[in-house]
Amino acid sequence: MAQTSSDVAREGVERVARRAKSAARVLRQCGTAQKNSVLNAIADALEMNTDVIVSANARDLAAGRTAGTSAGLLDRLMLDGERVRSIANAVRNVAALPDPVGNVVRGSTLPNGMSLIEKRVPMGVVGMIYESRPNVTVDAAVLALKSGNAAILRGGRAAAESNKEIVRVIREAIESQGLPADLVASVDEFGREGSVALMRARGLVDLVIPRGGAGLIQTVVREATVPVIETGVGNVHVYVDEAADVAKALPIVMNAKTQRVGVCNAAETLLVHEKIAPSFLPAMLDALSTAGVVLHADAASKAFAPASGNVVDATETDWETEYLALELAVKVVADVDDAIEHILRYTSGHTEAIVSENYSTIRHFVDSMDSAVVAVNASTRFTDGGEFGLGAEIGISTQKLHARGPMGLEALTTTTWILQGDGNVR
Amino acid sequence: MAQTSSDVAREGVERVARRAKSAARVLRQCGTAQKNSVLNAIADALEMNTDVIVSANARDLAAGRTAGTSAGLLDRLMLDGERVRSIANAVRNVAALPDPVGNVVRGSTLPNGMSLIEKRVPMGVVGMIYESRPNVTVDAAVLALKSGNAAILRGGRAAAESNKEIVRVIREAIESQGLPADLVASVDEFGREGSVALMRARGLVDLVIPRGGAGLIQTVVREATVPVIETGVGNVHVYVDEAADVAKALPIVMNAKTQRVGVCNAAETLLVHEKIAPSFLPAMLDALSTAGVVLHADAASKAFAPASGNVVDATETDWETEYLALELAVKVVADVDDAIEHILRYTSGHTEAIVSENYSTIRHFVDSMDSAVVAVNASTRFTDGGEFGLGAEIGISTQKLHARGPMGLEALTTTTWILQGDGNVR
Repeated sequence: MAQTSSDVAREGVERVARRAKSAARVLRQCGTAQKNSVLNAIADALEMNTDVIVSANARDLAAGRTAGTSAGLLDRLMLDGERVRSIANAVRNVAALPDPVGNVVRGSTLPNGMSLIEKRVPMGVVGMIYESRPNVTVDAAVLALKSGNAAILRGGRAAAESNKEIVRVIREAIESQGLPADLVASVDEFGREGSVALMRARGLVDLVIPRGGAGLIQTVVREATVPVIETGVGNVHVYVDEAADVAKALPIVMNAKTQRVGVCNAAETLLVHEKIAPSFLPAMLDALSTAGVVLHADAASKAFAPASGNVVDATETDWETEYLALELAVKVVADVDDAIEHILRYTSGHTEAIVSENYSTIRHFVDSMDSAVVAVNASTRFTDGGEFGLGAEIGISTQKLHARGPMGLEALTTTTWILQGDGNVR
Repeated sequence: MAQTSSDVAREGVERVARRAKSAARVLRQCGTAQKNSVLNAIADALEMNTDVIVSANARDLAAGRTAGTSAGLLDRLMLDGERVRSIANAVRNVAALPDPVGNVVRGSTLPNGMSLIEKRVPMGVVGMIYESRPNVTVDAAVLALKSGNAAILRGGRAAAESNKEIVRVIREAIESQGLPADLVASVDEFGREGSVALMRARGLVDLVIPRGGAGLIQTVVREATVPVIETGVGNVHVYVDEAADVAKALPIVMNAKTQRVGVCNAAETLLVHEKIAPSFLPAMLDALSTAGVVLHADAASKAFAPASGNVVDATETDWETEYLALELAVKVVADVDDAIEHILRYTSGHTEAIVSENYSTIRHFVDSMDSAVVAVNASTRFTDGGEFGLGAEIGISTQKLHARGPMGLEALTTTTWILQGDGNVR
């Protein structure tokens, strides 16, 4: 019987995964010093291969221009000497981070005299499925290696040539340090069916992390049989309370919406207490409009919008939308409970913020949220591994299992229990 | 268009789950003292309703006898006054455990002066799908409540009448304490399609824990879109090394295989170093045979089996089988690496044991395993929440995500990050 293309993809991905699993066993026996040598060798190799990487990237850029890719996306895709150097330095920073592997999480001597410890160990083989920027290829590979794991990468089609070259350079650098090249591998050649095969390689792949838009996350949740960590969908809310300090609220909302759009921790809906709306919203909506933000306003907030602004009527869809653009849904709410109800109904569980000076209101809001991060009198843009002091970030988990919010190296480890006895039986 | 039975099940389960989610919001605001009052009220109510529970159980037993259920299974199903009392006391023990909710996992003051803490919060709504004994209905409900969660239960058909009565008693007890009865609900009435609907109730159910055989676990992994913790499949190995103290090895193997069969931490395969086989295996296999253990032996170990024993040739299937019975696969291995290769190939990742006095061999074995628990000179039967000092056990995780090995109350919580600023922006 003829093989279908999905058979070919599955067999190809499983072959890659078996090699990765076997390479991961070798890495598991390496200490932190040896892993850091590999990371530093990767950083050096990326810099030494700047020319070939930038040439490969130029082919991606040319293809992107032909396909009519937007200037913004082309800029995210673009690599030059400076960006390669900055990627290499990020690798050196990961090498300098503390290694979570081997840390004892807890331990005790049991009543029967046995000693028990729970300690951190690598996951094994980690699959990453991501879109967009080629620096994620390097990030994912080195964070996996530092935490003792093999990485199987499935990158965005737009960066295919760049990723191919980067993976080649990384594999050679690993081998130069006497470790198996198969610790890092790409399955890009197997296309979309390869992605699905990766999510289903039970027994070979220990964890898959999708990093991308809601569509990718949904596909992974539906198709995956391998454990998954959902990341990065952020329908983020800022609630400005009756007791807000307007001098704090205005910059916080501006920062949350406009400092960087297209990121998961940017605000998408502004909720404003009706008692503060008349004194706060006119200046707020004027500032947002001036910054080019399209306002999707409910009837009550529309009354405070500037005549010159780009203001449209908010619909039910707006409350659910992660714009990732200079657009903001705006709603006036009756009180903090009304705000809480709205957020619990529409949130994706990423980050919510409250601006208020009232102790009890803040406490009630914080305790009522069901999201990874709740910010008080601070911008939602702080939800970030670097800002949180984790040193690096493999993604931002919006699920409740295993890791929540910004994920550092620890999220790529599991634990094992070691029980030491002296012939003990039950 | 006519509704299919799976539509009816889905709508029914989603209705139950929506009520559970709303009830969980109320529980989230309760302190430990109030949760403990509910647990103690449940314990009292179970004892006071012993008669109706035992009568309902008698109907299950009668149906089981009619259906030809084995005496062993009927015994596991059976409830009498003493067993109900013991279940009630187990509930009081859970009430006495420390509450993980609110514990601060970590925290720091960030360079910009903001304070950040990560603290434990309830998951929300936890689904439990289980087989067999009616005491699991009580266990699952009270462990969920203690950790601040609502529980949706799908029990085994054999215990349907008992479970129905137990859930009714629990719901009334919760209500008597002024909390919503919907914190604990059963979806047994929706049958198998109800189970599938429960695994797919994304956005309503935060976690599903299947507790049962390999068949149930596989169904959940295949069908679920809600996050899952796989539990309890134990293809457990004991390796007796060349340097083993035979006086420890013999009781450890006997205990691991025979102290209780039908449990996930019982040994299923014995691996013996070829150099110790002649001095160890004759007595070992004789003792096992005398205890009624059927030996699935490879050619080398068969030579040491007693003539009187029930010995069959091991096949490839035996290395993969979790017998859950008085049966044991036995194999002679060339050395510790041979044992490691065998285990890594066939293990379900639950528990492995080594019996040895050699420091370096033990260290190599422990570092090479990829299982939740590694026991050194101790029986595998110690893999248990109670033995590990966790106070209670919702199951034994054999996956690497979120929780590994015996799961206590903490495994039913997630965390949230709280960031406090003073108008901070990026």
